[in-house]
Amino acid sequence: MFITIEGPDKAGKTTQIRKLKEYAKDKSLDWVFAHNPGDTDLGARLREIVLDCDEHISDHAELMIYLADRAHHVETKLKPLLQEGKIIVCDRFSDSTLAYQGYGRGIDVNTIEIMDNLVCDGVKPDLTILLMVSEEEAQRRNKGEIDRLEAQNKLFFVRVRNGYKTLARENPTRIKVIEVDGMSIEEVHERMIEIIQTEISEFQKDKAGV
Amino acid sequence: MFITIEGPDKAGKTTQIRKLKEYAKDKSLDWVFAHNPGDTDLGARLREIVLDCDEHISDHAELMIYLADRAHHVETKLKPLLQEGKIIVCDRFSDSTLAYQGYGRGIDVNTIEIMDNLVCDGVKPDLTILLMVSEEEAQRRNKGEIDRLEAQNKLFFVRVRNGYKTLARENPTRIKVIEVDGMSIEEVHERMIEIIQTEISEFQKDKAGV
Repeated sequence: MFITIEGPDKAGKTTQIRKLKEYAKDKSLDWVFAHNPGDTDLGARLREIVLDCDEHISDHAELMIYLADRAHHVETKLKPLLQEGKIIVCDRFSDSTLAYQGYGRGIDVNTIEIMDNLVCDGVKPDLTILLMVSEEEAQRRNKGEIDRLEAQNKLFFVRVRNGYKTLARENPTRIKVIEVDGMSIEEVHERMIEIIQTEISEFQKDKAGV
Repeated sequence: MFITIEGPDKAGKTTQIRKLKEYAKDKSLDWVFAHNPGDTDLGARLREIVLDCDEHISDHAELMIYLADRAHHVETKLKPLLQEGKIIVCDRFSDSTLAYQGYGRGIDVNTIEIMDNLVCDGVKPDLTILLMVSEEEAQRRNKGEIDRLEAQNKLFFVRVRNGYKTLARENPTRIKVIEVDGMSIEEVHERMIEIIQTEISEFQKDKAGV
């Protein structure tokens, strides 16, 4: 079973994934945590190039580098784990590419889907938890940490957030949205566990043919 | 004007491009020589990853890395030069991706074309010279030098050569084929100059609206 965790910057994804890891450890659950991009040696080298490159990297080049990373991640890590029947929890996946490079940077979303389908080679999330945060709350949380990817203009992040909303509307069964504004870290965590456990039960019932 | 030089391994491309450079220098021609992949700082770093990676790189990842390189090459080098009205002679371009990754590795050629169109962003060769060599002649020329890309099986190169033939059939106006078997280096060179000069004249007539 393949679960992805998605969301725009400052939605609390990193914190929540750390809490999921603690939860899985406490309960001795055999979940595998993955992240995309940068989860393989090749991916880490590619990620380094994107983050540290002195030259401006074109939007198309950036997209292709992320897809190269995903292709390698799928083939060398995700597919073998799914074949073993593992439950994978992955920090970002295809929806991030659609939201950031597609809706955010304005690269044609249908073309990205064609390319992403090629590199995913049949691997699709069974469940996606989308942490959504309002622009106001995101700004409040952004206390000045900055890297090349975060140093983009405000409009870019508005487009990314709207992109995520579109994806959620178009995939209501797969994507479960949690609006984090006003929720405590603990409340978001509990809601995530609830969604994940329900889906795992459903998934196992389906697999057992019940 | 954008000219690409293509061909399967051992067709003599490197030698012929060296001779073209000498020719352009002797005649004080303002041609710009480019090569794809690896012609930008980003491209060189990506190329290094493909050639030196310890892990097996999946076909899809390799394809995406080449497309990332091309996207960056087009945006940062080729487009600005073409806008200045330069004549560019480029060692390999889209046809290589179609021949090697498409026909050679078996990735869907139509999908590659969609992706390649995205990264090329309107930049298309006005002329492609395709140096074709028979399998027998290619083997004769291959005197044991080997790298990761050449260490593939024979069938792969048969598919690449057939791919190039298909591309030539489908693009008879753009792609001019030179069958190099039995020709001397000098004969191939003279034929290339003849083709290039004819096309440059035509191109300049077209541009002048004659």
